[in-house]
Amino acid sequence: MEPCRAGKRSIRFRDPPSILAAAAIGGKKESEGPLAGYFDYCSTETKFGQETWEKAENKMQELALDAARYKANLRNENIDVLLAGDLLDQCIGSSFPLRGTGLSFLGLYGACSTMAEALLLAAVLVDGGYARIAAAVTSSHFAGAERQYRFPLVYGGQRTPTAQWTVTGAGCMLLGRQEQGPFIETATIGQVVDLGIKDAANMGAAMAPAAYATIRAHLDDLQRTPDDYDVIVTGDLGKLGSELLCELFRRDGVEIAEKHKDCGCLIYDAERQDAHMGGSGCGCSATTLCGYFMKKLQAGKYRNLLFCATGALLSPLSTQQGESIPGICHAVSITSERRQ
Amino acid sequence: MEPCRAGKRSIRFRDPPSILAAAAIGGKKESEGPLAGYFDYCSTETKFGQETWEKAENKMQELALDAARYKANLRNENIDVLLAGDLLDQCIGSSFPLRGTGLSFLGLYGACSTMAEALLLAAVLVDGGYARIAAAVTSSHFAGAERQYRFPLVYGGQRTPTAQWTVTGAGCMLLGRQEQGPFIETATIGQVVDLGIKDAANMGAAMAPAAYATIRAHLDDLQRTPDDYDVIVTGDLGKLGSELLCELFRRDGVEIAEKHKDCGCLIYDAERQDAHMGGSGCGCSATTLCGYFMKKLQAGKYRNLLFCATGALLSPLSTQQGESIPGICHAVSITSERRQ
Repeated sequence: MEPCRAGKRSIRFRDPPSILAAAAIGGKKESEGPLAGYFDYCSTETKFGQETWEKAENKMQELALDAARYKANLRNENIDVLLAGDLLDQCIGSSFPLRGTGLSFLGLYGACSTMAEALLLAAVLVDGGYARIAAAVTSSHFAGAERQYRFPLVYGGQRTPTAQWTVTGAGCMLLGRQEQGPFIETATIGQVVDLGIKDAANMGAAMAPAAYATIRAHLDDLQRTPDDYDVIVTGDLGKLGSELLCELFRRDGVEIAEKHKDCGCLIYDAERQDAHMGGSGCGCSATTLCGYFMKKLQAGKYRNLLFCATGALLSPLSTQQGESIPGICHAVSITSERRQ
Repeated sequence: MEPCRAGKRSIRFRDPPSILAAAAIGGKKESEGPLAGYFDYCSTETKFGQETWEKAENKMQELALDAARYKANLRNENIDVLLAGDLLDQCIGSSFPLRGTGLSFLGLYGACSTMAEALLLAAVLVDGGYARIAAAVTSSHFAGAERQYRFPLVYGGQRTPTAQWTVTGAGCMLLGRQEQGPFIETATIGQVVDLGIKDAANMGAAMAPAAYATIRAHLDDLQRTPDDYDVIVTGDLGKLGSELLCELFRRDGVEIAEKHKDCGCLIYDAERQDAHMGGSGCGCSATTLCGYFMKKLQAGKYRNLLFCATGALLSPLSTQQGESIPGICHAVSITSERRQ
């Protein structure tokens, strides 16, 4: 078979898979933010009717898959494989809701880059004929993440100025074959980048170099410029990380600020919602892509979008052991029509 | 492109990727067991010269990749993508050693099923022309796993009779294209199976139904019987889980006991090494496949092998919240020559 690699890190799909449907589920804070109208469902309380935050996260993934399946008029039996991951230890946010579904499951861990990693592999599986329909799912939950990564909420700790707010939300995209787009056109696999940032409350700075490396590789591999995209979307660099990313490109003589949007900066209102540097978590880029950007693509507002989800691959233990924070970023390009 | 699916969960590779090289790294206990001679390197102490057990795990993954690369005469630049995962929270065993390597990285979480999941996806990427050479890597460390999942070692807790011993080890396989085998011929993606086992010290029982489901699906999808294999290898069911697996097949009127071997039962000496039900952990199936079975395949002792790595998808938190233990099992078949 003809290889379909482009450059060092990228893939150009032979027959770009279609996004059959996408769905976004959000929590209470997300329902009060500027993207409220783009969610398929928002809960009015943090537990989604469950006993614990972790079970709430399970519920969100279930709701995201159900909503996407409903839109595409598909049953679980129609889905050949589901790729999912989340931030909870041992990814229990993703595996537990699949009990009893009979779905073939590939578990991923890419921290907050998981949505892009899942889409990339789902597109490979569909493009290569290994799956007819593949689902990409991910989620995060503010309260579960705070307890696991930082402090119990009841401790009432002061958040540092560079902190971000983990999004409570889940997103799901279903890829398959149909005439209509949007299509997953290309993908770029990220590398682990670590410039030595050790402050676990400054993820944006830790992830920005990884985002730069992947977007740079993407443009080089496919011989493109930022002008080939209507919008370049990063996952959760937040305000500070976004500025760093633009600055890194400026050193190459490339200005991306006009094309660049960060899901972490879009999802909360900086004035009203006190999220400091913005949103973060797997659910941040997943819900913003599956809700907001998907609707913009469908409405023709954007025709060519580069989605670059960023992840910080630290753990509480690695921080305790004095390690710096490795970052990663995977990218997929989405087009509303097949490019010539 | 022609689809290459078989049945509900399986893939039949169009042009089966070759295993270019494999390497197994082990700890001290592993160097004293019956498979000692099949490791490429064993440490005489538990930390591999590092400061912490977690950094020792990083070191093992690094050594496994280096040893496999050395055998295949490849540099990091020749590897298009590396797929890896491990048991540590946020998979820090896999991501940290990749800093500075420039390798494109896809992180996985499949608990102890990770080696099969990584091989499956690596084979998809090579078969489909998305990567020329792909690496599959995983590891586990007894001391790190005990501290994280159970008790600090210094607590000196009594181990229950159904407990297994997490293998200290790492395995790496490199897939690519060459005339010579062994080849990754088919793969079956697992589903999450949970029959309600809640005892986190009895993983074998929790994983056996998942192994049964995947092997059953594999045989059905490809219209095969156990006789089509010289050996059916499970990851770390241990003594109890292995008996349960054979019993589940007996209910179908199928006897697999003569074909079945479990890495957890092979890696330690039941009489001498006090591992209770046997070995477990990502490193258990990875080292046994990359060391012992790889050499048996190369020597022609086995020609057709079904590798079924099993994982228990629990977390300490899920157990604390009273949840039962979901299991998963992914399978790849390995042939020493191309099947007609």
